[in-house]
Amino acid sequence: MSTAVVGKGLEGIVAANSGICWIDGEAGVLSYRGIDIHELAEHSTFEETTFLLWNGFLPNELALREFQAQLSLARALDQRIIDMLKAFPTAATPMEVLRTAVSALSFYDADEKDNSHDANVRKAYNLTAQIAMIVAIYDRLRKGKEIVPPDRSLSHAGNFLWMLNGELPSETATRTLDIALILHADHELNASTFAARVIAATLSDIHSAITGAIGALKGPLHGGANEGVMRLLLKIDKEGAEPVEYVRNMLAAKQKISGFGHRVYRTEDPRATHLRRMSEQLGKDAGQPKWFEMSRAIELYINQDKKLNANVDFYSASTYATLGIDIDLYTPIFAVSRIAGWAAHVIEQLDDNRLIRPRAEYIGPVYPSPWIPVAERP
Amino acid sequence: MSTAVVGKGLEGIVAANSGICWIDGEAGVLSYRGIDIHELAEHSTFEETTFLLWNGFLPNELALREFQAQLSLARALDQRIIDMLKAFPTAATPMEVLRTAVSALSFYDADEKDNSHDANVRKAYNLTAQIAMIVAIYDRLRKGKEIVPPDRSLSHAGNFLWMLNGELPSETATRTLDIALILHADHELNASTFAARVIAATLSDIHSAITGAIGALKGPLHGGANEGVMRLLLKIDKEGAEPVEYVRNMLAAKQKISGFGHRVYRTEDPRATHLRRMSEQLGKDAGQPKWFEMSRAIELYINQDKKLNANVDFYSASTYATLGIDIDLYTPIFAVSRIAGWAAHVIEQLDDNRLIRPRAEYIGPVYPSPWIPVAERP
Repeated sequence: MSTAVVGKGLEGIVAANSGICWIDGEAGVLSYRGIDIHELAEHSTFEETTFLLWNGFLPNELALREFQAQLSLARALDQRIIDMLKAFPTAATPMEVLRTAVSALSFYDADEKDNSHDANVRKAYNLTAQIAMIVAIYDRLRKGKEIVPPDRSLSHAGNFLWMLNGELPSETATRTLDIALILHADHELNASTFAARVIAATLSDIHSAITGAIGALKGPLHGGANEGVMRLLLKIDKEGAEPVEYVRNMLAAKQKISGFGHRVYRTEDPRATHLRRMSEQLGKDAGQPKWFEMSRAIELYINQDKKLNANVDFYSASTYATLGIDIDLYTPIFAVSRIAGWAAHVIEQLDDNRLIRPRAEYIGPVYPSPWIPVAERP
Repeated sequence: MSTAVVGKGLEGIVAANSGICWIDGEAGVLSYRGIDIHELAEHSTFEETTFLLWNGFLPNELALREFQAQLSLARALDQRIIDMLKAFPTAATPMEVLRTAVSALSFYDADEKDNSHDANVRKAYNLTAQIAMIVAIYDRLRKGKEIVPPDRSLSHAGNFLWMLNGELPSETATRTLDIALILHADHELNASTFAARVIAATLSDIHSAITGAIGALKGPLHGGANEGVMRLLLKIDKEGAEPVEYVRNMLAAKQKISGFGHRVYRTEDPRATHLRRMSEQLGKDAGQPKWFEMSRAIELYINQDKKLNANVDFYSASTYATLGIDIDLYTPIFAVSRIAGWAAHVIEQLDDNRLIRPRAEYIGPVYPSPWIPVAERP
């Protein structure tokens, strides 16, 4: 067998055929099933977008109603999962908790041993509804608050905010989160989705694949970046520093600024366009334009000086902050959305599966090196 | 950016530089850090092999003693993990339990927020010791038996058998398992190790990477195959069928036989050589040669008729069966060993990291497809 030597990180290497997401990194195009992300952000809902990702086409009225009903019916967590969440230490980060609880969901899923297409769609409903519930419930538990039962009359975004805050969210807050969920729902073979496909391709179960994806999303080079952005804004604010000067000093000290640059895009990340707009509008409405204004100043500077564009993470930070969401929930909220894409990719992988098993370029000690008895070793 | 189109499953594609494991699939060579697997199987121990995988060289006497001491000191599970295992439903499969419990270990690891090389080595000691403990403890719990406390005077293999069975294992049993653990400890960029590296490359934590790897190992195209082999042997035995005829009928019906063929080897899997020998010897010693003899007959037939070689999974089945180990522990025992390689690869990835983010070849609906109002959809 011959091996092709390629660059580190599989950059530019095609690892799968996929009909889910098309990105043109040069032109700054992101599309789900052929539909431009700008159209979806303007017109669609998270539920409709999830249907689109899973089925390949937009639902008609009846199909959309049924889909929404299925997803809201799946808002039912086994009491033993809730008991487990209660037993977790309150210092655990929400991403560790989400990873662990999603892994445990398989214990109580009636379809656990069934890896068929239809069973995985049923499991995807449960995972989509319940990831949001786990994030909201654990946040209340760690704060010593009562758990808020789900409201099946609310949308996915609305119910999440309801379960998180215990009060009915405003239309603006619900629609803002809904759009953020649409924007984050899929992004081709990003690291977490690729991890999910690698795991699924062993014919393991969807819970294993999604648990692995959550672990990948946790990383600061992936979903964890949005938390990094907000920590920087808070630090600048606390020190009363001038944002551009602060960032200039960081760059001079070779420190990395989260939220800029992207492996695929050479233009503005099309998702940043919407998050910037929402961040600005929310800040204005709430009489709290600070986070947007700091972000905008940093963006313009890095754009000019480093020729780097803001990515999806940069303005999701100030958007979520203005919605009053805790920093360490930003990455979990990414998961609340990305489960739509993860599930679509796992199901697509299994519909035409092949084990994903690359090779390594060996750079270690020469073969054969002898085994030497322990007494003779230096 | 240009993308290179390659075959499905990244076959023959180099995804990383690595100094850990060198395989020559044409010649049937497997080596860890340059040392042939046959030498290690003959002379080494799991502890020494793990030191080799992590450090790149064989330990001298002092270093080996220290390593063994560290590993046995790490045989301490937080009581809250044990309580969690007690709360799991006894019908949960050991791999689901292991995946969930390993994810929860991060809650109680003092180094959880430290992703440095040294911290990850410390976490690797804990993971290596505690994965074995979790497998043994959960097996006793689900059978309603008392938990057996670890014995720090025993080797890794010996302590695992002690905690599993509650009686001191024979020297033969301990050495057999020890060799099996050496043979399974690493295998370059197999699917679970690759999943671990994809997850780690986001700069996520080692617990996320290992949790994802366990999920990948669970799949029947990967670690799950050894369980498939034993289920087949049991079925043939129960039906009183002639093994070769049974397998011939399965192949005629296009059914897959677990334990044969390998993505990388074009010869005999060098690990199978040792497992075949141990399976035969154990069967002879125990006066129970049945599983070996059935396996051997099937192997010879598939070898001749299908030109497929037995892989690592084929004779591990009859070996573990003769050791009296439950079928659904075979894949967990694979994890008890492979954690050595997973940890080595995660640490190597982080020492010279780059995000692993390939591309997909888009085969979906044409871009741009319009978003159509719901009332106008067919």
